[in-house]
Amino acid sequence: MDDVLANTHEKLINIVLNEFSTTLTLKELQSNALKDLLHPKQLTKIHKIINAPDFFADIEVKADAIETVYELSKYYEIFVATACMEFPNSFRDKFDWLKKHFSFIPWTNIVFCGYKSIIHSDYLIDDHVRNLNAFKGEGILFTAPHNLKDTTFRRVSNWKEVSELFLPII
Amino acid sequence: MDDVLANTHEKLINIVLNEFSTTLTLKELQSNALKDLLHPKQLTKIHKIINAPDFFADIEVKADAIETVYELSKYYEIFVATACMEFPNSFRDKFDWLKKHFSFIPWTNIVFCGYKSIIHSDYLIDDHVRNLNAFKGEGILFTAPHNLKDTTFRRVSNWKEVSELFLPII
Repeated sequence: MDDVLANTHEKLINIVLNEFSTTLTLKELQSNALKDLLHPKQLTKIHKIINAPDFFADIEVKADAIETVYELSKYYEIFVATACMEFPNSFRDKFDWLKKHFSFIPWTNIVFCGYKSIIHSDYLIDDHVRNLNAFKGEGILFTAPHNLKDTTFRRVSNWKEVSELFLPII
Repeated sequence: MDDVLANTHEKLINIVLNEFSTTLTLKELQSNALKDLLHPKQLTKIHKIINAPDFFADIEVKADAIETVYELSKYYEIFVATACMEFPNSFRDKFDWLKKHFSFIPWTNIVFCGYKSIIHSDYLIDDHVRNLNAFKGEGILFTAPHNLKDTTFRRVSNWKEVSELFLPII
């Protein structure tokens, strides 16, 4: 969900640039993991911000995500699995966000989890190498600032590329 | 979680006997699924009660569940997967209930889901035949009023029996 369906990192970048005392540039923030750029105290602050009620409510949907997932749902059984168990205050926000933007995905196919080793599916499109490593099916890495250097997994940079990979050419 | 770790059905029975206008007996309620006993309007009421905030907070833990799951966690990687996506108001309650009673299970190993076909594990101990049918590993049926007639799955009636099935004899 985060940084695959939702522009979570972009929201965090705006918070860092506008609310933190920092010399980091937009370019640096767009090409590195926050955990490699911020001080421990700033990371604790980010953790609190993510877990605050309503943090998730206004996050923007990634370009072409809705249209592509909708098309995919005609050919595949689609589940949305988000590793949000670390942030209990995000549960309701995340559920409502999916209902708002991806209303065609039924509640039966939504998963809130921690370790993604528990997910049973053929493919997993994810932005975290650790999630794809834990996953038993075929992992596809969705490009994000925190995974630019990885060469282990097949990579997609946006939803147009997901579409090209999984949808029949009409 | 419900009717495996938590005495959810017992709480619902008490609500039916004390708050509903009914001629049903305790014995009937303990040996049938509520959906086979209650009228559609009563079932809608039950659905609302389950989804009300705090419904889950005071549900009792099943006998021997904590001790047995703790022992199992020494030999197995334990995940708790609960099909609660239908009840968004239960998310936080369920998370807090697990933290209170099963604090030794880390957040990384908690799953909120709908269809349990998405669960990847060797075993699933569940009270619903539909969940075990959807599951790809070995299903174990935990006896509950709504599954007494099933003969498809290996059955356990309580946590002592789970212990006998999965723990080494010391």
